[in-house]
This record gives sequence, structure tokens and C-alpha cells, in this order.
Amino acid sequence: MVNVGIVGATGYAGEELIDILLKHPQARITNISAKIDKPRDIADIFPKFKGRISMLCKEPDLKEIAAKCELVFLALPHTVSMEIAPKLLKAGKKVIDLSADYRLKDTKVYEKFYNTKQKDKLNLSCAVYGLPEIYRLKIKQAKLIANPGCYPTVSILALAPIVAFGSAEPGSIIIDAKSGVTGAGRKIAEGFLFSEINEDFKAYKVNAHQHAPEIDQELSKLAGKKLHVTFVPHLLPLNRGILATIYVMKTQNARRKAQNLISLYKKFYKKEPFVRIKEEGSFPRLKDVVNTNFCDIGIKDEADKIIIVAAIDNLSKGASGQAVQNFNIMYNFPESMGLL
Amino acid sequence: MVNVGIVGATGYAGEELIDILLKHPQARITNISAKIDKPRDIADIFPKFKGRISMLCKEPDLKEIAAKCELVFLALPHTVSMEIAPKLLKAGKKVIDLSADYRLKDTKVYEKFYNTKQKDKLNLSCAVYGLPEIYRLKIKQAKLIANPGCYPTVSILALAPIVAFGSAEPGSIIIDAKSGVTGAGRKIAEGFLFSEINEDFKAYKVNAHQHAPEIDQELSKLAGKKLHVTFVPHLLPLNRGILATIYVMKTQNARRKAQNLISLYKKFYKKEPFVRIKEEGSFPRLKDVVNTNFCDIGIKDEADKIIIVAAIDNLSKGASGQAVQNFNIMYNFPESMGLL
Amino acid sequence: MVNVGIVGATGYAGEELIDILLKHPQARITNISAKIDKPRDIADIFPKFKGRISMLCKEPDLKEIAAKCELVFLALPHTVSMEIAPKLLKAGKKVIDLSADYRLKDTKVYEKFYNTKQKDKLNLSCAVYGLPEIYRLKIKQAKLIANPGCYPTVSILALAPIVAFGSAEPGSIIIDAKSGVTGAGRKIAEGFLFSEINEDFKAYKVNAHQHAPEIDQELSKLAGKKLHVTFVPHLLPLNRGILATIYVMKTQNARRKAQNLISLYKKFYKKEPFVRIKEEGSFPRLKDVVNTNFCDIGIKDEADKIIIVAAIDNLSKGASGQAVQNFNIMYNFPESMGLL
Amino acid sequence: MVNVGIVGATGYAGEELIDILLKHPQARITNISAKIDKPRDIADIFPKFKGRISMLCKEPDLKEIAAKCELVFLALPHTVSMEIAPKLLKAGKKVIDLSADYRLKDTKVYEKFYNTKQKDKLNLSCAVYGLPEIYRLKIKQAKLIANPGCYPTVSILALAPIVAFGSAEPGSIIIDAKSGVTGAGRKIAEGFLFSEINEDFKAYKVNAHQHAPEIDQELSKLAGKKLHVTFVPHLLPLNRGILATIYVMKTQNARRKAQNLISLYKKFYKKEPFVRIKEEGSFPRLKDVVNTNFCDIGIKDEADKIIIVAAIDNLSKGASGQAVQNFNIMYNFPESMGLL
Repeated sequence: MVNVGIVGATGYAGEELIDILLKHPQARITNISAKIDKPRDIADIFPKFKGRISMLCKEPDLKEIAAKCELVFLALPHTVSMEIAPKLLKAGKKVIDLSADYRLKDTKVYEKFYNTKQKDKLNLSCAVYGLPEIYRLKIKQAKLIANPGCYPTVSILALAPIVAFGSAEPGSIIIDAKSGVTGAGRKIAEGFLFSEINEDFKAYKVNAHQHAPEIDQELSKLAGKKLHVTFVPHLLPLNRGILATIYVMKTQNARRKAQNLISLYKKFYKKEPFVRIKEEGSFPRLKDVVNTNFCDIGIKDEADKIIIVAAIDNLSKGASGQAVQNFNIMYNFPESMGLL
Repeated sequence: MVNVGIVGATGYAGEELIDILLKHPQARITNISAKIDKPRDIADIFPKFKGRISMLCKEPDLKEIAAKCELVFLALPHTVSMEIAPKLLKAGKKVIDLSADYRLKDTKVYEKFYNTKQKDKLNLSCAVYGLPEIYRLKIKQAKLIANPGCYPTVSILALAPIVAFGSAEPGSIIIDAKSGVTGAGRKIAEGFLFSEINEDFKAYKVNAHQHAPEIDQELSKLAGKKLHVTFVPHLLPLNRGILATIYVMKTQNARRKAQNLISLYKKFYKKEPFVRIKEEGSFPRLKDVVNTNFCDIGIKDEADKIIIVAAIDNLSKGASGQAVQNFNIMYNFPESMGLL
Repeated sequence: MVNVGIVGATGYAGEELIDILLKHPQARITNISAKIDKPRDIADIFPKFKGRISMLCKEPDLKEIAAKCELVFLALPHTVSMEIAPKLLKAGKKVIDLSADYRLKDTKVYEKFYNTKQKDKLNLSCAVYGLPEIYRLKIKQAKLIANPGCYPTVSILALAPIVAFGSAEPGSIIIDAKSGVTGAGRKIAEGFLFSEINEDFKAYKVNAHQHAPEIDQELSKLAGKKLHVTFVPHLLPLNRGILATIYVMKTQNARRKAQNLISLYKKFYKKEPFVRIKEEGSFPRLKDVVNTNFCDIGIKDEADKIIIVAAIDNLSKGASGQAVQNFNIMYNFPESMGLL
Repeated sequence: MVNVGIVGATGYAGEELIDILLKHPQARITNISAKIDKPRDIADIFPKFKGRISMLCKEPDLKEIAAKCELVFLALPHTVSMEIAPKLLKAGKKVIDLSADYRLKDTKVYEKFYNTKQKDKLNLSCAVYGLPEIYRLKIKQAKLIANPGCYPTVSILALAPIVAFGSAEPGSIIIDAKSGVTGAGRKIAEGFLFSEINEDFKAYKVNAHQHAPEIDQELSKLAGKKLHVTFVPHLLPLNRGILATIYVMKTQNARRKAQNLISLYKKFYKKEPFVRIKEEGSFPRLKDVVNTNFCDIGIKDEADKIIIVAAIDNLSKGASGQAVQNFNIMYNFPESMGLL
């Protein structure tokens, strides 16, 4: 049984973490904190938890957290994580950070897209990008996990096999992504009012979203050369889920070889408990992944081009579920413990 | 052609007024104002109006409004209306006020439910409650219209015939009302975020809503004695529309007489262009009234009790549509002009 | 570990049963059947189950079911259950029936509301109404559970304390209930199309719903005399959840005693793992109960009248969750096993 | 005043036509028909029309239609239109056909994508593709209008300027389109149930939709050479509206010239009453076009590539509104009559 803490418990990812961890047979929540005016029972903040947990949610007190927890989940806005993580790491705690602070290895890119300095380069250098399907062995040893963004999770999983095999024409990758509203966090702004989003649909940050460089970084590593994707996110009038439709031109080589891409994907993800490849002619839908930790991937293989449709739950595989998957790996628990 | 102004153009009711008035053959919008940081074209604030109108929306300048308009619609929060209305009336303008400021004749009741003083008793005394089906003749002569609240509109129309005919046991009336989110205005608060309302449903202000005394006032007048209703509003996960399910015990007299209530309602509303009585066994649904100025009413007549289901669009018949209906009456235009 | 079967696996309740039972540490699904053209893997029918279960769903073969299962869940339309249940019971199996077939003890009432004969009076007489909060001891011994309807579950739990204590004026109870669309089952009909329900809201079967006599039967038992409720259901544009707003006149006795109703409710449900009483001034919302087995109840206690708001998830506490709660009781498992 | 008939009045497009034409000052609906068991008043079929129109909707009787109408709108499934249109044309009537029957000039393509023979090649040859922004002059003279599909309308308008100016690399055009559910018509099938679509999102007919060849045909004409687009439609959980995100590689020539694309678009659509070009950095949203006949277009102009976001209401500009726009052109009425 591992004692864990959650910092940032009142956001969507924090709420989801509590929900998952309460069902986890090997995790015990021993501290809950958040930016909050005065301490309140987490079951008063989220009445749905009444009868399942009763614990005071307070402003984070790092000494107390260090004393009570072995591992800490940070479900914080970016910039706040890198204030807290170093202290917890110094106290010998393991940290799974759900913010963007430790994802981008190039601090200039981070500073450009997040409009702030990366202030913890020391830990940045040993942070492991927590995408189990790619970095499982490193995650096992890690002290600090940079839990991937929601759009990057679905995009990288959808593209990894063909990018790794050199079948994708660099520069041709277009990711048209659609996300439910919880993807943006619990933001109190006019644009997130019910009457603004219900019966509406729109693109936003058109090819200018901060998740694009994260996708670029990871795909470039897989490709062994610099890649740059075109990325346009959209806002769906629903609570949870991301579906990405991805268009890729094949390389000359790939056109000639004409290998079976669905088989390639199945082989690539053969042992993965949370990646499901659809049969030919079949494509993912949000309903099948929402409230699960699965990533579903469907492939249409055409003469010169590949169309990939992939879907995850942005709060589960795209955030808190993946964080718990990383937690399971770090402690040698069965990887799907508490997640199926 | 009548020159009209809209004060409070950036709220839902103001936006709806612009939409309706742009199609009205006898109204010309000559001034648009709202609480706003700096003047902006209304078509920039609401891009949907682009190509239909281009007019600067500014902070209200009463002199300019008085110079340019013959009648002014006030789509303002309560308390703000009673600051502005007296000045416009003094300048000889007609005013249709969509706020609650001039609806409650008993200022003590107003002050209790709206937590503020009624500061314009002079005009309050001559304000006409703008429910055409009850006050048409007075509306014709009025200088100041207190446009009814959305819940009161549907509730009073649903109950007027049986209350006026003395068929309802006083004290037995229960109004279980359900409203779409635009009913609350464009409020930027956590409770109105998409992810809070979507897939949710709840009661609020349980038997403590400020529209209850407005219903009481008008039904009491119709009954010729004090009535007090039980009123519980609920929040629906949709944009527009109110449906109220109403339960009434019959008086002994009404039980004995056993008159046909559907016929009674049809007779009562015989000449009304915007009230539709459903046939026996048929009940209203929101879809049939949304984006229209109609009020649909269905009746289930049982031995000892009457169940009434009534529906309107809260932004049209419940606010801006009714305001334009009043405008038509005041200027002797056909009552449904611009509304069908 | 108990081997269980599910008959009627392709409906909403069946789908939900699979989801719950797959997480249940003491249940093993050994047979899945449904009305189906040809056998298909349940994970092909519901791709969301892929990676969690692979089992052929076939037409029910009672011999096979009896051979493989110790207890069978029937998630069938009414009339079909009473064809199958007797055979399974005869083979010594335990049965939890989610249909209406064994709920109404008065076969005349059943036949009036369901337009068909009750053909299994023998088992009807020993069927136990599976509402644990009222019948826990009987459920422990039962061979056949009549799992309650969704509307009755929330209505009876909301009313039991005041009805049992004689505080409710008989004949005064009004239940204004609002349900998400899964309440009606997976019906392919024009009325259930997305474009018919989205942005709509309506009442249906106004005071003529087949769940009313079920509520009457159980409340009458609790009251020790015949009760008859007024019941109007409505259709919400959302997937899951029922919220009922209930209006009750107090008896003279109750008005005089002026006991604290919230305390009364808390005492009545003191040991219940799935009933949560809200504090004064606080009322349930669907979000807090959806995807849980909880029933939340809020009470507004007025001089002459009580307003109760209660909420459940119609597929969980209103159907499959409650069925598993009953299963837990029958096998002496902790009552909330697999349900928290 | 023109007497018009509507055949296929009970589908979404037919319903929308009635709604628009009832407000049109120069159209008088004189016949309403549909596939229907027995004649019913259209206001009984659609209670929302009560108080606005009362007219029997019957099976189409071509003699009666010809006797009563000068122009007929066919809002029929494909294959049915080409049975009826020839007879009406022969009787000297004008026809606006909202089906696909007369859109594709190449009958082999029609037969491939619609699985049926084109049986009216005579009229096909003189049918005018009813996209006013491209074919206004021909529409003025036409007897038979092939009203464009919803996806083609938004796609062609979004691409026409750059395709006509040769700025788009042929073969590079990717159209990622998202449509509300009314786009599919009033289909009673499991896939269109509320509980299947609500909170879901998916791609369908991935690069295999029957609207793709329609887009190809029209863009090829504009380009002066064969074009073939990649087209992936998706289903949004909302009632009305299509938003398409379009990706185009620039030709070498276009990269060199570096002209201002937003200016180009503004010039191209300068005199169009229903096309609105967004300013730089601003993109369309469904809310701004739903219930209007506008097409909003936003452009992101990058070094090597163009991203275009365009939106329409699929039932208005994508069907019935555009049909009325064509009607206005054919009769020399102001083009936006009844549409603003």
C-alpha cells in the first residue's frame, strides 16, 4: 500500500485522480491540497465523494505532504508545479506532475509557448516523459514523471508506429483534433459558459496551440529527425473525450512497400493493455473510450496517404488515468490496476 | 416607422431584441447601448449580426437616446432600470422595461426579494404589467411597461382561466418549473460553466425564487383574493425554453360543476394570437415554442385535481418577444408583426 | 466467487451489469445472452468492452445457463422475464429480475398497466421486492428478486421516512419526476432520435405511468393504508439520471409536532451505505449521483408542506447497481462490494 | 406573389422550407405533400406551425401540384426526385430539387456513389447547380435547379477563391468536416438515437462520402483541371450546423507571390450578401451561422500552406435557405428576401 498525496485536488484532473485512487487497491490517499480560501472537506467540495472519503483539503503544506506521502501527484497549472516539485523531490518523494512544466526538454520552446521561464532545469533533465507505451523502462526508474498532455497522448500514440518506421513524409502530418470542454480545465470565463458552448463548435488556437511542440518533440525522437506537425484543435460541446483525425502523406518508400498498416500497428502495440487497434473499415468513437484508460486507433490506408482516427478520454488516458498507469509502473503493480 | 433604442444590448434579452427588431417592418433601431468598456460595433460583439446591422454600442447617453428614439427597451439588471427609466419618461419617451423593477406593486415585497429599495414609486404606480392577454387595453395607453418575468409569464397564462373562474383551491397551487440556462442571463460564474450544467439537472431557490411574488400578485388580482403559490424552479441543460408542470386542487364547486376545462381555456384565449391550447391527451414540448412567441398549454382534468403543462421560449414570449408584442400594441400595429 | 449469467445483455441495463460485474471481485460472468440474430462476441457488440472481456453473446439457452451459472440476472423486457425465470428457479438457480414482471403483487394492477397477463403467480408470491433499504432481511433469503423500477426506487426512498411515520397527508403526494433517456431502454423510435430530444423537454404519460402503481403498492405498505400518488414523469435531454421533486402536505399531527425532518431522515437511513441526506438548504443534483449507486435526498420543511428533492442514476441505483447490491446481500458480501 | 409547392414536407429540409416560406413576403405555399399514410394537417404533424398555417399534407398528386403551383421545391430522398421532376418540368413548372439527383453531371459517378441509375439524363443536362455565388446568372434562367449538398456548399465556398486563382496544389486539399445530426435527415436508426450521439463524436464514411465527388466536380471546373479532395465527415452532438477545417498546400507560384489571402477572399465575395470573411486571427463558429443563411470563412495563411475554417447552417445555406435564395434569383426578388 502506497501513501499518496494530491496537490491541486479541486481541478478536473485532481477530482478524477481522487475518483480513480479511491478504487485503487494499492494506493491510500493521505493528503489532499489545493489553492483554497479555507480548509474544507473534499466531500463538501465534491458532494459526489460523500460516503467514499472524508478528508480536509487545505493549502499545500510541503512539510506535511512530505511526512505523509511517498508519492505526490501534482495536478496544478503550469509554473506552479516547478515551484513545488523540486522541494518534494529533495525530500526524497516521487512526483508525477500533470502540468506542462517538465515536458518540453528545450526550455526556449517552453518559454515561447508558456510565456514564462523554466526555473528548474536540474530536475527537467531527469524528468521522464510519462507515456508508458514509449518510455516504460525509464518510467520504472523515474523519480519525476512529466505526465503527457491530452492532445500529445492521443497524437503520439496514433502516429508512433508509422513515424518510427519511417512511413510518414516529414512535414506532411496534419492533426485535426476535437476535444470536450474539460480539456481546458475548470476555467471560469465567458467562453466556457454553457450557453456559449452548447450547440456550438469551433476551432481555436489554429496551428498555434502549446501542445504542438510537445508532439513535435516526441515524434522527432521517434523519427530520428526533426518533425513539425500542423495542429488545429476544436472545442466539442461535450464533457469528456478527444478524437483526432490525422492525415499523413506516405514516403516514396512506404508507397512502394505497401505493407499492411493495421498489422503494423497491432504488432507495435501487441503487449499494450490500453491501446486497441480497430479492424479495417472500423473507426473509434468517443463513447468507447470515455471513462476508460484506453486509446482506440483506426486506420485508413490509401495509396499515397494514411488517415488515422484516434480517441481517448482526456481526463483519463489524457491525464489522471495515465498518471495512475505511471504510478503502477513505478511500483511494479500490474499496469492496469485500478484502471479497468 | 418607429425609432427605438435598446439599453443593455449585450445581454441575452438585448441580443434577442436586436434579432427580432431587425426583422420588424415598423421598427428602426437608432441607438444601442450597454455597460461596456469602450464603444464597439454591435456586429463585432455579436458576429452573427454582421451583414445585418452595423452600429456602435456605447455606454448609454440618455440625452442622445432621447434625441434619437421614440421608445426605449431597457434590457437591464434590476435596480439599473429604475435609475434610467424616470429620465427617459420625463423626456417624453415611452419605455418597455424588461427588468423586475416595475413589476411588483408592493414595494416591501420588491425590497425583500431583490434586496434593494424601490426608488421610483411615482412611475411604479402608473407602470402597466405587460402581459397582453390580461392587460391589453392598459398597455395600449401605457408610457411605461413592466415586461413580465419569464416564469410568471408561463405560470400566469397557464393558471389565469381557472383562477379567474374560481376553480382553483387557493393555497393548493404547485408550480414545478424547468428552465433553460439563458433564463439566468449571461452570468459568468462557476455554476454556469458548460461542464457544470451539461448532463446535469437540479432544483434551485426551492420555494424561494423572486418570481413567486410576481405570480402571487397577478393571480391574486385574477382571483379577487390573496393567493400564494408553491414554486420550485429547475435548471435544464439546454439553451432556451421554460416548461412548467402545475398541480392544482379543484374547489368543491368546480368538482361539482365538472365543466370541460379544455373548452374553458379555448374560450378564454379565443382571440389570442400567441396562446395555443392543446387537445385532450396532448401536452406541450419545448421544441414547439422555442424561437417563437407562442405559449402552449395542455390540460389534464381529473376528478379532484388539474394538471397543467405549459411552455414558452424564455427569451421570446418570456422576455424580448413579449416586449415587441407590447410595442406593437402601444403603436396599434398588428399584434404579431415581426413575431411570426 | 459466484458464477453469474446475464440474460438480455444488449440493452442498457445489461450493458451496465457487465460493466459493474467485470469490476466485482466476487462475481464471474460465465454466460451472456440476448435476443440476437447470430452469436457475436459481446466486445464486438460493445467495443468499449474490448480488452476487458471476450465472450460470445447468444440466444439464451436455459440448459447451458443453468449449467454454468449459480445466479442469473434477467435484464429483459416485461413478459419475457416471466417466461424464463420459472425455469431457472426450477433448476435451483437464483434469479434477479430487472423487469416489472414480479414487482406488482396485485395481478389485476399488473395486467391493467402492462396490458398482459401475469402468468407466473406461483413465483410472484415469493418474489422479494429488491429495495435493500426496506427489505434487506428478506432479500438475504430470497431466490427471486423483483428489482425495483427506476422511478419507484427514487420515489420510495424519498418518501419512506415520512410515510412510515405518518407525517404525509394521504392523497396529497405529488411526484414530479425527470429522467434521462436511458430510462426508457434502447428503443429505436422517432421520439428517441437525437434531434427530437436534444434541446427539448416534455412531460409524458401524465399521471398515467406504469411505475405509479408500484410506488403506490410500496408506500401503502409503509403507511399501513392505501395511498395513491400523483406522478408525472418528464424526459430530460441527457443520458443518465433521475431527479424527482416531491410535494407532500403534512398531516395535522405532523404540523403540530414540528419534528426536525432532516434528522428524521438521517436516523431512518443511518446505516445505509447508499442513501445520503443533504444538509438544510442543500439539494441533490444529478452530477453527484450519476455513475454511482447513491440516492441523494434533500428536504425543505415548511409549515404545512414538505418539499423533497431526490436523485439517483437510473441505470445504477435505479437498475443494475441495485441488482448487484441485492446480489451482494444474497451472498453475504459487503453490500457495497464492486459498487464504490 | 408566387404560388409554390413543397414535396417531401415532413423531412428536416421540408420543415425548414415551410418555416422560411411562411415569412417570405412574395411566396405563397399552395400545396404540401409527402410520403404519408393518410392526409394530415401539417400543423398537426409539426405542432410548432399551429397558428401560422393550416393545410393538408397529402401524398403528392402531380396534377394538383401542377394546377396550384408555379414553382415546386422537392425535398425528397435521391432517386425519388428524378421520378417527379420530369413530370413537373413537362407541365411547365419550375423545380428546385434539394436531392442529389441532378447534381452530378457524370452519371457514372452518380451511379457509383448513390447505387442507382440516373434515369433522367435529358433534364440532367440542363439542370443548373444552384450555388448562387458561382452560378447566379445561370440560375436566373434555369427551369431546374440542383440545390447543392450541405458539405459541398461550405467546402466549395471555402475553396473557390484559391482554387480559381490557382493557389492550391491539386491533390493536396484535405477537408475535415463536422456536421450536426440534422444533416443526415430524419433517419430512424439506432445510430441516430439520442443516447448514441449525445456525449459522443466520431468520423464516418472516412474518405468515402457521396458528397466528395460533388465537391470534386465543382472545384475541378473552377480550377480548369481535375481535382480530387480528401474528405472526412464527422458527426457532432448538436442539431444544426457544419464546420469544415480545410488544409491546402500552396503551389510554388502562390508561395512566391505571397498575396494577402484575406483580401483575395474579400474581393472574391465582395458583393455576396451571404458570405462573410473573418478578419485575420478570427475564425467562424457554428453559433454565428445557425438559423441564418450565412457562410462564414476564416483563413490562416502560412508560408507553405493555407488553413481555412468555414461554417454554415446545414438546413439553411446548406439546404432550404439556399433553395429560397435560388428562388429569389429566379424571380428577380432581392436575393436576401425572407432570409435576413
